[in-house]
Amino acid sequence: MNILLIGAGSVGQGFLKVLALRSQSLQESHGFVPRIVGVVTRSKGTLFDEAGLPLDALRTALQNGHLDLTLNSSTVQRNPAIQTILQHSAVDIVVEASPTNVQTGQPALDYIYTALNHGKHVVLANKGPLVVDGIGLMRCAESVGKALDYEATVMAGTPAIRLATKGLPGAQVTGFRGILNGTTNFILTKMSEGGSFDEALAEAQRLGYAETDPSGDVDGWDAAAKVIILSAAIFGVQLTFEQLSVSGIGELTSSQIQQAKMERKRWKLIAEGTREGGRVHPVALPVDDPLANVNGTLNAVTYTTDINGDVTLVGAGAGGQETGFALFSNLLEIYEQFF
Amino acid sequence: MNILLIGAGSVGQGFLKVLALRSQSLQESHGFVPRIVGVVTRSKGTLFDEAGLPLDALRTALQNGHLDLTLNSSTVQRNPAIQTILQHSAVDIVVEASPTNVQTGQPALDYIYTALNHGKHVVLANKGPLVVDGIGLMRCAESVGKALDYEATVMAGTPAIRLATKGLPGAQVTGFRGILNGTTNFILTKMSEGGSFDEALAEAQRLGYAETDPSGDVDGWDAAAKVIILSAAIFGVQLTFEQLSVSGIGELTSSQIQQAKMERKRWKLIAEGTREGGRVHPVALPVDDPLANVNGTLNAVTYTTDINGDVTLVGAGAGGQETGFALFSNLLEIYEQFF
Repeated sequence: MNILLIGAGSVGQGFLKVLALRSQSLQESHGFVPRIVGVVTRSKGTLFDEAGLPLDALRTALQNGHLDLTLNSSTVQRNPAIQTILQHSAVDIVVEASPTNVQTGQPALDYIYTALNHGKHVVLANKGPLVVDGIGLMRCAESVGKALDYEATVMAGTPAIRLATKGLPGAQVTGFRGILNGTTNFILTKMSEGGSFDEALAEAQRLGYAETDPSGDVDGWDAAAKVIILSAAIFGVQLTFEQLSVSGIGELTSSQIQQAKMERKRWKLIAEGTREGGRVHPVALPVDDPLANVNGTLNAVTYTTDINGDVTLVGAGAGGQETGFALFSNLLEIYEQFF
Repeated sequence: MNILLIGAGSVGQGFLKVLALRSQSLQESHGFVPRIVGVVTRSKGTLFDEAGLPLDALRTALQNGHLDLTLNSSTVQRNPAIQTILQHSAVDIVVEASPTNVQTGQPALDYIYTALNHGKHVVLANKGPLVVDGIGLMRCAESVGKALDYEATVMAGTPAIRLATKGLPGAQVTGFRGILNGTTNFILTKMSEGGSFDEALAEAQRLGYAETDPSGDVDGWDAAAKVIILSAAIFGVQLTFEQLSVSGIGELTSSQIQQAKMERKRWKLIAEGTREGGRVHPVALPVDDPLANVNGTLNAVTYTTDINGDVTLVGAGAGGQETGFALFSNLLEIYEQFF
């Protein structure tokens, strides 16, 4: 099982860490260890060797910010064309963990189509391609008989996709309602404890939860991207941002948040969807709603089913290792099904 | 796919209801409808017909408290020996939903061994056999190459077993901690709202959540049975009640519960386990613990994993239809894997 990894930031490196952590037990339980044959990065170039790259040396190089491994191999290629190695016969699976562009899905979207059309399985942490053309990608994967898995795109390693699509066989999920963005949930939690929006945002940025430009999180667009992905996964419907009603937490004041507390309510940025559509908006939830006490960077989703009531899943919504684990868990499922 | 149903109380009837609700969509999606060939009850006798029993007439008869269906069939058997029909070649799957005896596991334990040893798959809602000899049953099922599934035994249709055993591939669950008994959680919730233990228990009994003799729930033994089942499922360890430390909610006073509220804590009956053992005991959880705000008859479990932090699942912990759905979901999994 040969892997081409695209993207070696915190998620890509988290994936390699989980692979290293699990290689011995995987060898014992499954009799194999997946092999990294290539790594594609935006700023450090591309390294490819169909004979396989040494995992420990690769991880060390990436931690040190480069890909200049000393390799004693006659088949190594430095900075080959990406479209060429996506088609290489030595690649079985493409793991896509490059930065997200939710407007175009590129360049990942083209990479994934090339990979699928050349018989590779694809595992994604990158939301962009699914937001732009998730249903198209799913149809393509189905038509070529390959896997397209994306557990990592929603709630990191917390198996939100797997629960909705495989965890309730015989029931239909008729709707979802969740806290799908950790940054805004951290800010709302801090504001609930008495801080101002600016203080809470500054702390989120200091801890690495929020980006320098936090608008993608704060204005609700990251949560909206996850609504689009869940709607495709569960209902088979491709939504666009334009079809969603999206409002963020930027308008919420500290006094509104304190007022809600006195009324035994908690403001949360709620992302929700049904077969008819979806929205993202702040809601003051009653304190006994399972989502009301999901605090800090935790994420949660409640699935409403037709014959089994509501089922709620709570867990980490981000983190390099957790997201890397999600990629790894999809890899194992593909191994069980196809190899 | 021919089913012998043992037990036709609220869970058995819930299973038949889900089967009826799903038969059309199942026919469309899978091209088959499971057929009930026999029903074994304690008080209404046994009805068996290898040609299949009419589902609607069967449900109506059971709702009216009998099994005296008018059947125009030459193969019908009324009150045959149970051990004989367990071995009948027309039976593919035994669904065990008879009343639980956690001391002996009987008579279900004998039934299940007979069924497995005669090549039948087994799906369980009955905790008794697993509490007494779960690991033995799992080994037997493995040795004969048949399924032994029991999603219904813990948290009804909320997929607690499936999440721990299949939902986190590549991670190890190192511990669990949950609210696994709805009756005590309902009583604690009512006491937290100001009622006395006796008032809360009376209301639970009036609503059908608590039995006339509530000691199995109140003293923690039902939750302990679920600790034993989860320990077998996750760690492959067969615990006994004697190995567990079990205390219930009977000693908790209203003033303790109100005191905890002032300290921003909530008393919950916590059932927990690791590879080293397990216990059931009331704990005053900080209000921001994901389990602290699981109220009423809801159940929840938090799984601690080695590489993906904590994952919490919240949902219905009881109910005829929900538990019947869990049986049905296992049935579908068996169909996908074996048929």
